Parts: sequence; structure tokens; C-alpha cells
Amino acid sequence: MKAIGVEPGGSDPRLLEMPRPDPKPGEALVRTLRVGVDGTDHEVIAGSHGGPPPGEDVLVLGHEAVGVVEEPNGTGFDHGDVVTPTVRRPPAAGSNEYFERDEADMAPPGATVERGIDGAHGFMSEFFTSPASTLVSLPETLAQWGFLVEPMSISEKALELARASRSPFTWEPETALVLGKGSLGLLTVAMLTGRFEVYCVGRTDRPHPSIDIIERLGATYINSRETAVSAVPEVHEPADLVYEATGHAKHVFESVEALAPNGVAALLGLPDSWTFEVDGGRFHEQLVLSNRALVGSVNSGPRHFRAAVDRLGSFPGWFLESYVSRIADLDSFGAAFETDGPIIKTAVQFDTV
Amino acid sequence: MKAIGVEPGGSDPRLLEMPRPDPKPGEALVRTLRVGVDGTDHEVIAGSHGGPPPGEDVLVLGHEAVGVVEEPNGTGFDHGDVVTPTVRRPPAAGSNEYFERDEADMAPPGATVERGIDGAHGFMSEFFTSPASTLVSLPETLAQWGFLVEPMSISEKALELARASRSPFTWEPETALVLGKGSLGLLTVAMLTGRFEVYCVGRTDRPHPSIDIIERLGATYINSRETAVSAVPEVHEPADLVYEATGHAKHVFESVEALAPNGVAALLGLPDSWTFEVDGGRFHEQLVLSNRALVGSVNSGPRHFRAAVDRLGSFPGWFLESYVSRIADLDSFGAAFETDGPIIKTAVQFDTV
Repeated sequence: MKAIGVEPGGSDPRLLEMPRPDPKPGEALVRTLRVGVDGTDHEVIAGSHGGPPPGEDVLVLGHEAVGVVEEPNGTGFDHGDVVTPTVRRPPAAGSNEYFERDEADMAPPGATVERGIDGAHGFMSEFFTSPASTLVSLPETLAQWGFLVEPMSISEKALELARASRSPFTWEPETALVLGKGSLGLLTVAMLTGRFEVYCVGRTDRPHPSIDIIERLGATYINSRETAVSAVPEVHEPADLVYEATGHAKHVFESVEALAPNGVAALLGLPDSWTFEVDGGRFHEQLVLSNRALVGSVNSGPRHFRAAVDRLGSFPGWFLESYVSRIADLDSFGAAFETDGPIIKTAVQFDTV
Repeated sequence: MKAIGVEPGGSDPRLLEMPRPDPKPGEALVRTLRVGVDGTDHEVIAGSHGGPPPGEDVLVLGHEAVGVVEEPNGTGFDHGDVVTPTVRRPPAAGSNEYFERDEADMAPPGATVERGIDGAHGFMSEFFTSPASTLVSLPETLAQWGFLVEPMSISEKALELARASRSPFTWEPETALVLGKGSLGLLTVAMLTGRFEVYCVGRTDRPHPSIDIIERLGATYINSRETAVSAVPEVHEPADLVYEATGHAKHVFESVEALAPNGVAALLGLPDSWTFEVDGGRFHEQLVLSNRALVGSVNSGPRHFRAAVDRLGSFPGWFLESYVSRIADLDSFGAAFETDGPIIKTAVQFDTV
């Protein structure tokens, strides 16, 4: 079968010929439909994050997949079920408490591998196998968009953690500030509009298709070249919820300035080391005096996938059509990895239902 | 009646003669037994925090009180009930949503005054009045220690917020790191030992009575002059829970280094503005990659007072006798405000049951 892999840190992704995998007991064989591409893939390709399985030079890419069960292999699935896989698997050392209680997303670094990212082959192949417990069902009507469930699940988890942190008191958040209008930020704007007054910060001038989408969703675009994140409360309004999806390290500090009293910032971006001056006293005081919180969040688990499936079904068709810039066929898969121009979200199509 | 007040920012607390207050409808009149002194009182006396009611020069001190209901005045209390008052009251502008739903502790600055601290007279007087909804009952056996309920309630709230932030997943914290061995830190060590392996960081060399208490409680004292907070995981073990009670602004950053994966730091100290260099990228990344959280917490509400009353009853007698360094009578009340020597906790005694 064909697969798309990379030798991280220099080469472009290339087409590989690999044996079709045989499902082990408890695993199903899945025929791949589409696999999305995101910033993490680009970091893996550049060699700045993750890498191949131990002892191998090449990593099969892809962690945002949707497929169809080809061989249920004794699992509860039926042939033809549309499924999307979670990303984390036990490390070579074997399973651990996090996997045993189905909370792999809470495993610390070292206690997990991540398919298509770090230490395990991904889903960018015509077929893949996966344990039944890692496969989440989708209605067939959502099959073409199912590769969006994984990134949405990342936000579902972050929002769950943020909300839980406010659960001891009455918290009725009205405003959300999304930092970043990349593929994850924009998807999160779509998840939050309707329930929140949403502001989305980017650093792109108009015109840009993302800005058009933000505004059509009913959210407000803020150009950070014109309005600093810390000035959002003054220029617009304080945010009950901040969602940080860029990894710009100063956003942690600016988020606390942007928060309303009793607000919470969910942090998802992954910055590199960067030393700079901050008013640490003010930062600390602002957290304390107004009961503010910061919650870091990484990865996601099956319940976040299920929540994302439900929410995906509520997205308007125009949003999905506008948000997904490009679906590249397998024979021109390189187009899914291009970053020139106003591309929002891409995927590689391996097959159709 | 006699009261202890201060003109903040220069003078020492002094004895005042004031009219005995008349309870308004819904209020009880309370005969004061003891009122504790803490770091906030010293900040108020120095003029660096809070201040008198609008239009007045003098503030009656005291926000950690225990007393006996003298006139129930139609409230549900009986004459002789032992009670401790919460601290926040509506501002001059009137009540607001936070008070209406009994969550005054979540009121942002400006939406509340604080008795004995900011904008309202405290409880250091022979009698005080307070709405029945702000008075929490104690068993008479705890009357002499009831002034500890308010500071304990501060920690109960912080621990509630910390635990809630971890509620979406299995979190079975085993280790707690308390930053600060002042009166609040030490009280929190007593609250956590038994349920946690507790480490307490201070910057005092031995011998010191606080260190003796920490060790008798079964906790481990860490001298920060020998072991930096960020080195605690290496020298001892990572902390599932960090409790910051010093207001040292760098502790926010060091706490994240000290946390175990999926851990949470509760921040309570109030630093002044202080600009310094931090590796903001690493700080951000550590929060995200291991699902860590920071929760700021200020003040406390009636349910935190009730939890503190329950817990106060479980403290061993030796702890209370050792922890409370000095009970000053009203005619020598100045002794309760002295900070020389190894004083842990003081209170002024107005009367006995």
C-alpha cells in the first residue's frame, strides 16, 4: 500500500510503498479516507518536534484521520463504519496507568507515543490498524469532514479543563478571545460562536479568507498589529475565556491582562525557549486578586472526540467548504503540504466512502 | 466600647472609644472573643494595602474574628452561639450579583469592601454587628481557636479551586509543596498533612519554632537558601499541588518547575510590581505539555468557613498551642502586633465565653 512519510529535518514528505498492516487481536483494519495536515505536521517535517519510531529513519505522517472499517477483526465495529482514531498509544515499554484508565491524553512526555508525530507511524497510508478503544464512530454523513474531529477534540479538551477550573462558582462566560487565526484558532472560533461573543486575534492585514470566515461566523477580527492583546479589554471588552493557539510565549502574560475577573485562559500553543522581561509581580497579583486561572492542555481523549463529532454535525456547510482550502489527491499529495498563499486547512484524500 | 484602630501609613494601632453598634434588621450583635492578626493587618497598618471607610481617617482593624451572639435580633441565632464572620460586604454603591448569590469572594476589586482591611471597619472591638448570612457557627469547644477559621477558609477556597481544575480526569495528588512558613503557610501545612506528603519551603535557618511544628506535623522543611523551589523535584520529588502563600513574584514561575505532570499551583500571595527576566517560552511550554494549571485565589465564602470549622476540630491540641504564639489582652494589645522574634500567630483577646 502507499503511505506518505518523511525523514524529519530536511526532506519533503514522499510517497512510500509499505506492506498493508494486519490487525492484531483487538484491533480493526481501517481504510483511510482523508488525513488532515496541521502545524504539528510542519514541525515534524522540519525536525523541530517528534520523530520516527525507534530504529527507523522515516515517519509515516498524519494524526488527523478519518476512515472506514475494512476488517472489524472481532471488534464491535461493522465493516463500513466510519471512524476517526485518537493519537496516543502506549510507549515501547508497555502500557501504563494513563492508558489503563483511558486517559492517555494525561500521560506525561515519555509515557506515550503519538501516531504520526512522535515515535509511531501515523495514518497517512491507504490502510491503518488501531485498537477498537482508540476508534470513535462518526455518522457517514460526516465522513468527508471527519479529519476535523481530532483538531476539534483538542479544543474540546481545553474548554473542558477551562470550564472545570471555574466550576466551584457561578461562571456564565459571555466573551471569548481566541489568540491565533490559524487552522486550530479558526476552528475554535467556529466552535465558540453562538455560545460566546467571540474575538479572534491574528496578525494578518485584510483581505484574507480567514478574516472573511471569522466575520461570517459573527466573530470580531482583531489585528494584533493595531490592537495589542493586553489592550483588548480597553478597546473591546475583557474576555471571560482566552484560548491561546499560537505558542507565542508572551501571550501567557498578555492573556492575564485580557481576562475579565474570574476568567480563565486555556493554553495550547507550544513555544520554544524565549527569555524576556515581564512584570512578574503584576502577573502574579492579577491572577490572585481576581481569581483568574491558566490551564495548559495537550492532546485529547475519546470523550473529547465524541464531543467533537457532535459539534462537527452542527457546523454550517458554508463554513466547512470555506475552511477546508484544499483536498489533495494521493498522486498530488504535496499540494496538501504547501504553505504559500492564504491556505487555511488542507488534507490528503486516500479514498472515498 | 473599646476598639483597636489605625491611621494607616505611619502610626501604630491605638485604642479607640466608640459607640456600641446597634444591629440593623437581619444583623446580629456579636460580643467579640478573639481577633487574629496576620500579614494583611501589617500591610494595612503600613498603608500599603486597603484603608479606612470613605471619609474616615481611622480604620478599625481585624478580619479574623470569633465571638458570641449577644443579641440575635430576630436572626436564627441564639444568644450565646459561637460565630465567626466572613470578611466581605457590599460596597457603598449597594449590593451586586456576587453578594446576591452568596459568592462575595468572587467579587472583583471595586465590587466589595473588606471589613478590617479595605473600606469598612473590622472586628477588633468589644462588639460588632454583622448580617446573619455572614456569620458561621462553631461548636463552643472551638471558641478559643475560632479566629483561625478565616485564614483556614482562605486555604479551603484555594484548595477547592485547585481540585476543581483537575476534576475532568483522575487526579490522586500525593505530594504538596507549601511555599511560605508564615502563619498562613504553616496553617496550610497542618491542613494538608495526613492527606499529602507535605514539603514546606521557608528561608529561615534552624532552630525556629515553625520548623519544629512542620516536622512534628510530619512534613519536610526545605530551606530555600539551600534548595531552590525549582530544584525541589530533583532534590525531593515533584509536587502534585503547590500552594503559594508568600507573594514572592518569582514563585509563579518556580512553581511550574516544581509541579508534577498534571499538577496545579494555587496562588494566594500578593506581590508588588516587579519586572525581571523569565524564560516565558519554557514556562508556557511546561504548562501545556504536562497539562499543568495555575489558579489564583482570594478571599473565601461561607462554605469555605464551614469546611474550615470542620477541619479545625480535627487539629491536635499540641498544634494549636504551639502555633498560636501569643494571645494579648486588650490592655496590652500592642503585643499582638509585634513582629520581633520567632512569632507565628497572635491574637487580641477581648473577652471569654
